[in-house]
Amino acid sequence: MNIDKVNISEKFGRFSDHWHPRIVGELNGQQVKLAKLKGEFIWHSHEQEDEMFLIIKGTLKMELRDKVVEIKEGEFIVIPRGVEHRPIAEEEVQVMLFEPASTLHTGNVTSELTRNKQEWL
Amino acid sequence: MNIDKVNISEKFGRFSDHWHPRIVGELNGQQVKLAKLKGEFIWHSHEQEDEMFLIIKGTLKMELRDKVVEIKEGEFIVIPRGVEHRPIAEEEVQVMLFEPASTLHTGNVTSELTRNKQEWL
Repeated sequence: MNIDKVNISEKFGRFSDHWHPRIVGELNGQQVKLAKLKGEFIWHSHEQEDEMFLIIKGTLKMELRDKVVEIKEGEFIVIPRGVEHRPIAEEEVQVMLFEPASTLHTGNVTSELTRNKQEWL
Repeated sequence: MNIDKVNISEKFGRFSDHWHPRIVGELNGQQVKLAKLKGEFIWHSHEQEDEMFLIIKGTLKMELRDKVVEIKEGEFIVIPRGVEHRPIAEEEVQVMLFEPASTLHTGNVTSELTRNKQEWL
């Protein structure tokens, strides 16, 4: 078993497309993913999975049905299962995600943004 | 349900003791914890749980039986279940941990460092 560290900044340097999470770690059936976000995502929810967004760079606006939460570098938010949300990145945001290995990022909605492949970086 | 963000730096400002993880988030049966480390911990392993260390500040040396991995700010490591490890912090390190809600930080070893209480910050 090869156990080694992961450098987040180095991983972010390997891709540039938006709304396309890459897997960088796995533990206890959960995956750690990195994504670059820019623009508005779609309204969606995850029926069975809570989802955590940890902001590495930039500012993410998380729209919920009753408020908007602005999440900056060094901050995180957990969106509980079943809660509708829509991430908005006015400028590019680098985010680390924690979610079950089964999670699709578009949740209950299938759109042209939906990616089914599990891509390790 | 009150959904809000968590500021990591603000949370670290609320405690100063070492080797005493505080819970700051929970998702999918996993907990997000913050801890300040300084000095040498004990050799231990977790039989059923993988454990992730994300370095927020400082440099952590992770001793494994066959090597030492130096993990700096912006880097993380996943220690798979069953793998003996010993964290060493020559200077104070701020770390974010991801592990199942059931995990004791001293794993298979009970020592004077073991804390059973689940403390939310």
